Amino acid sequence: MSRPVLDFFFEFASTYSYPAAMRIGALAEAAGVTVRWRPFLLGPIFRAQGWDDSPFNLYPAKGRYMWRDLERSCARFGLPFCRPDPFPQPSLMAARLAHVGLAEGWGERFCRAVYTAEFGEGRPIGDERVLGDLLRGLGVAPDPALARARADDIKARLRAETEEAQRAGVFGAPSFICTDGELFWGHDRMADALAWAVRPRP
Amino acid sequence: MSRPVLDFFFEFASTYSYPAAMRIGALAEAAGVTVRWRPFLLGPIFRAQGWDDSPFNLYPAKGRYMWRDLERSCARFGLPFCRPDPFPQPSLMAARLAHVGLAEGWGERFCRAVYTAEFGEGRPIGDERVLGDLLRGLGVAPDPALARARADDIKARLRAETEEAQRAGVFGAPSFICTDGELFWGHDRMADALAWAVRPRP
Repeated sequence: MSRPVLDFFFEFASTYSYPAAMRIGALAEAAGVTVRWRPFLLGPIFRAQGWDDSPFNLYPAKGRYMWRDLERSCARFGLPFCRPDPFPQPSLMAARLAHVGLAEGWGERFCRAVYTAEFGEGRPIGDERVLGDLLRGLGVAPDPALARARADDIKARLRAETEEAQRAGVFGAPSFICTDGELFWGHDRMADALAWAVRPRP
Repeated sequence: MSRPVLDFFFEFASTYSYPAAMRIGALAEAAGVTVRWRPFLLGPIFRAQGWDDSPFNLYPAKGRYMWRDLERSCARFGLPFCRPDPFPQPSLMAARLAHVGLAEGWGERFCRAVYTAEFGEGRPIGDERVLGDLLRGLGVAPDPALARARADDIKARLRAETEEAQRAGVFGAPSFICTDGELFWGHDRMADALAWAVRPRP
């Protein structure tokens, strides 16, 4: 019998996508679930809700809380934490590169490297030199990867993923969708999503 | 040595305050924490953020998700669930009555009764006849309690609690505040808040 599948929708500018991306591999393996990594862009979805910035910037009390809560969560899970400045970081090129990497076999490692650089070390992930460093660290030649990331099919794929996320009801990141359509939002629902993916079916 | 104290800020119109209110007593007892029940009003705090309605109504995708997630959470914790209509319910008189009850020794039981009526049975908690029924069920005479709830000192207490919540950084409900000021937001942070309250101090 094939393993249950869980779609993991995440955005590189999203704070709670960081611990989710760092932890989902081991938790999914323990649960016997195959994860499909699906980087998308929150910008178009936020704009459809009338927001032109992160809600953590638009609503300062919520933003202050989030940074403190993220710091606590990282401490709890043993993840390094360094608040990126500015926030949110430009995530478009990282997301396109992730789609290149997911097709070429280095995608998940690249995603974790981007998140660690951004939220663990405070490095600017919108800077292609930084992304090039991360690629080299994975043994991937930067220039061909960056060139692929600018190709029309990769741009189209990222747009399609974002549209599919929106159609499936995604309004934030990280989000997890089971094959029956059941949606879970937030790093703190990741374990619930994995449990749902493997629950006995009627 | 005195027991650690945790402030529990909640609002009767708030969906996730329902499971929090139903569960916090047993969890706090097990953790050795004394809970201060502090009903407040989210309306003034939401208006200060530019919202004139629940964010779950203002942002429909988030609202659809919340109702489904709340239903799942209630199933998980063995709580009855019935979506109130309309949402949010008018919570002002229930909050004032809760402050009366907290001063008179029947407050926590009243809060649980209101939440069960509202989110477990779909009853209109803005209706004073419903509130009167709930009071009678607790052995409290409704008319004197409702008269007390309309007194100036109770109105002032509710306003003061709302202002203190806002000063402490509260932007949603339920929220939990430890005596050192550490803030936790959401039913899914309740266990973290209790753990923080009892953690060893340096």
